[in-house]
Amino acid sequence: VALIDEIREQPDVCAGLLERSARVVAGIAAAARERDIAFVMIAARGTSDHAAVYAQYVLGVLCGLPVALAAPSVVTRYGGRPRMRGALVLGISQSGRSPDVVEVVEEAARQGALTVAITNDPTSALAGAASELLDLRAGSERAVAATKTYTAELMSIAMLAAELAVDADGARRSLQDVPVVLREALAADDAAREAAGRFAAMDECVVLGRGFNLATSLEWALKLKELAGVRAQAYSSADYQHGPVASLEDEGYVLAIRAGGPLASDIEELIARLRAERRANVLVLADAPVGEDASGGSPLVHLPYPDRLPEWLSPIAAIVPGQLFCRHLTLARGLDPETPRGLSKVTLTH
Amino acid sequence: VALIDEIREQPDVCAGLLERSARVVAGIAAAARERDIAFVMIAARGTSDHAAVYAQYVLGVLCGLPVALAAPSVVTRYGGRPRMRGALVLGISQSGRSPDVVEVVEEAARQGALTVAITNDPTSALAGAASELLDLRAGSERAVAATKTYTAELMSIAMLAAELAVDADGARRSLQDVPVVLREALAADDAAREAAGRFAAMDECVVLGRGFNLATSLEWALKLKELAGVRAQAYSSADYQHGPVASLEDEGYVLAIRAGGPLASDIEELIARLRAERRANVLVLADAPVGEDASGGSPLVHLPYPDRLPEWLSPIAAIVPGQLFCRHLTLARGLDPETPRGLSKVTLTH
Repeated sequence: VALIDEIREQPDVCAGLLERSARVVAGIAAAARERDIAFVMIAARGTSDHAAVYAQYVLGVLCGLPVALAAPSVVTRYGGRPRMRGALVLGISQSGRSPDVVEVVEEAARQGALTVAITNDPTSALAGAASELLDLRAGSERAVAATKTYTAELMSIAMLAAELAVDADGARRSLQDVPVVLREALAADDAAREAAGRFAAMDECVVLGRGFNLATSLEWALKLKELAGVRAQAYSSADYQHGPVASLEDEGYVLAIRAGGPLASDIEELIARLRAERRANVLVLADAPVGEDASGGSPLVHLPYPDRLPEWLSPIAAIVPGQLFCRHLTLARGLDPETPRGLSKVTLTH
Repeated sequence: VALIDEIREQPDVCAGLLERSARVVAGIAAAARERDIAFVMIAARGTSDHAAVYAQYVLGVLCGLPVALAAPSVVTRYGGRPRMRGALVLGISQSGRSPDVVEVVEEAARQGALTVAITNDPTSALAGAASELLDLRAGSERAVAATKTYTAELMSIAMLAAELAVDADGARRSLQDVPVVLREALAADDAAREAAGRFAAMDECVVLGRGFNLATSLEWALKLKELAGVRAQAYSSADYQHGPVASLEDEGYVLAIRAGGPLASDIEELIARLRAERRANVLVLADAPVGEDASGGSPLVHLPYPDRLPEWLSPIAAIVPGQLFCRHLTLARGLDPETPRGLSKVTLTH
């Protein structure tokens, strides 16, 4: 029962970060300001790479920082030496043992960059390689599918962005609401079970999000693959319309994330289009009801998450009902959420 | 017949770039050196975004430049103002009309960054927004699925990387071989037709590549979706093992790109693993035969491309048999390569 326990621990993990890591985060932000960093570079794999995508939006929008996602093999396999001296370099890995992530941070440290390890193991190689440590404090994660370390990574990045934000005070205040909103998000378990029952026959799907919640679509799709064996493909809803939409079959399955903010209508219009033109079966993870208009009668199921956070923090809450849905779908498909097929907890790629 | 004509024009398009754009590229490189740019930022969508992924590797490995792929909505929808003054900012769009790409370049220009439009339309909004123009000179592209503008984008980026490379002379020499190697690559048409016949029943697949040829896997997968309606999902072979492999069904379809260089054994080992553990149906786009060992007897089909280019240039040649395969697969599946479903040539996302 590791998975459901760890899903339920997420409010406490975020509360613990707020309480115990605020000073460390403020120190990292002060060092970044002092160095007048030109950009942020992030090395990460798998679930942690989705936290990196979140960082790309939150550091870009709140802090005006360009974010480069490191292609680790540039350094680790081709011997490239990208100049990182003027950058803030983040290595994200729950285990701290991903060799390629460690190598990128080691190279950045050699060049004299400001380096930060975001990891759940303060004794790991990654923690040792970086000059600063942002400990996820999530407690041991036993389930193969990462849940609480993912939200802890998002929370850590949100805290760092808040300290570097133009409106730091407002951002810090919003962060205080995260733990209680995550507790509310866990109440979606019944809705998640019911939705899973309706989507139990789904062998493949696309998962559409955009902006801050592109990370949610990537992470939701990965959990669907890892746990439920569903061949789920995540897209930015903008990129999806530049080609991939051509391969959606009639009555195909579409999962989407709807959040408030300037992109809400984009997702709603795309959902309406796919229902009208392809009679898509749609499940929408949403903070507000999505209209039934222009439906053509194809199914539209809502999976709610609380709308009480500003959009930049919504990914921390939105993924929770998504995780619950994946767990119920896994059970509904006769699989065991604790033993994903062909996976181990730590994957060592160079 | 626009598609096959445009596929066949690719050697001449690359030869034309070598002949007519060398001076412009050298000028852009000189301006970048003079400004001592800290990093490169690229805005692109769809096929052009795959050229951006190629740029991430080639500029990182040959030139030591970190590359950030812009998330356009940070600027266009959220009003974020990432600091780009110290960057070389590339906007890539064959039509030059993608509004979000234009907006990122306009913002960079406002900030005083060195901006370059890489486009097939020198009169486009993108060309007008950037201080420098790298004209793709590919001639009008009529097919909805981009082919010659993609290889022209790769070629332009390779030429820029060569000028900024540590070993610029060696890189420039290798570039001269591209047109003749592309002519040889077109000879794979019979092999592509035969492979397409064997894979005609393929409704979905994964496409695995890594390093320089991650771009090839992304572009090949997009063409499979656009043209043949195959639900193809591209992965870095490293990321694939961090989770997605769990959802590969037994006897599932796997397409892979094998190139020389330090990552060749990674792809070969992954192919062997997927054949042994999942009895995968494998098509490998390869510059050299991939071993039959540890096969468990599952099918392994080769689609050859010429091995005469160094690995950093191999993506320009490798995609050509991939395009030919997609065209034959489209015909084998009873579809029309000239009229992909639900797509138009220019997609306007903000």
